[in-house]
Order: sequence, then C-alpha cells, then structure tokens
Amino acid sequence: MMKNEIKFDSNGLIPAIVQDAETKVVLMMAYMNAESLRMTLDKGETVFWSRSRNELWHKGAISGNIQKVIEVKVDCDADTLLVMVNTAGPACHTGERSCFYRDINPKAFYNL
Amino acid sequence: MMKNEIKFDSNGLIPAIVQDAETKVVLMMAYMNAESLRMTLDKGETVFWSRSRNELWHKGAISGNIQKVIEVKVDCDADTLLVMVNTAGPACHTGERSCFYRDINPKAFYNL
Repeated sequence: MMKNEIKFDSNGLIPAIVQDAETKVVLMMAYMNAESLRMTLDKGETVFWSRSRNELWHKGAISGNIQKVIEVKVDCDADTLLVMVNTAGPACHTGERSCFYRDINPKAFYNL
Repeated sequence: MMKNEIKFDSNGLIPAIVQDAETKVVLMMAYMNAESLRMTLDKGETVFWSRSRNELWHKGAISGNIQKVIEVKVDCDADTLLVMVNTAGPACHTGERSCFYRDINPKAFYNL
C-alpha cells in the first residue's frame, strides 16, 4: 500500500500496537508520526513519538530493550498499525513483559 | 483497579485493542467511552463508541459476529485497553478474520 493511504490523525499521529511475533503477547501501544514510522522501517527497530516528552523515542535506546521489527501491518481503514517484534527484555517501564499486566475490575464500572 | 484510574482522552474515549483469546490474533482496534465500557463489562460482549457514526456500536449486533469478552486488561498508564475475546466470525467488515490483513510496504516511506 502507498504511504499516502496511511491516515495520521489531526496531530499527525497513528496508534501502533506492538505484539511479540513469537509469543503473540500484546506488549504495548504507542504512537508514531510519519518520521518515526520511516525510522522504524529504516532501522528495523521501533521508534515512536512520545506525546508526553514531545520528541522521537527510540524504544530501548536507554534501557537496552530494543524491539526488532519483523512486520508492520495496517488495518482496513489505515488508521492503526500493528507492529510484530522480537525483543529480549520487558516492554514496560515497570519491568513487566507487557504493559497490559492488570485486569480491570468489572464491578467498579457498574455505577459509572 | 478503580474506575477513576482509567484515563479517557479529551473526547471521553479510550482505545481498545481486541485480541482473540484463543489464537492470540489481534483482530481490531476501536474506541470506548465510559458507557460502552460499562455495557461491555455488563453484557460480556464488546460495545464500542463509533467515532464516524457518533453512536454506541454493539459489535456483531447486525452481522451476528458478536465478540464474547473473556478478560479486559488495562496498560501501565491506564490509557489503553486490551480486550480478550472469543468470536466465531470475522472481526473485519471486509470479511477478513482480522482488520490487520495488510503489510505496509517499507519502500513507500523512504521519501516521506
């Protein structure tokens, strides 16, 4: 598919789900802008746009937990990416393998 | 975790990744508001907020491809959900099992 088919949002970002290519565990979700997506494809390692720090974020550059990109998929309406990766270390800053390590408690929502 | 720890964005929405609990295939990503999240937990079936139609969207109500909720997880910073489901039919309106059925072509991004 062509680059101009990828739909970045009004902030120039697209959500990128990161999945372990081997275990299929969903590790994290972060955002990419066009530059970080190009860098991701170029390096073969995930690069995101940090919304909190407002800067490019080469995942693992500091922690060492680089994510090697196996495949980048895009969904039917081209506004979400799925990045399949190989990684040795944890994806989460807490040290957990996946950022999704907590269940929500259904009962807490009944009175929303 | 408590309901007030879930972080909805400035539009009152939170992205929800939907993963097949059995095959671990990432099926789709959609958005929930507090009401659709409560309905999802209450029914045990996914209910989203459709940003294009601006209405509640009970997935499969028309197509029959209901997603039965096995587990709802939340990430470390509580701004993304991961919903594990069982489903018999395709998640995608194209008839594909997953909305992520296309690879992007890295070469198309080199000149971004």
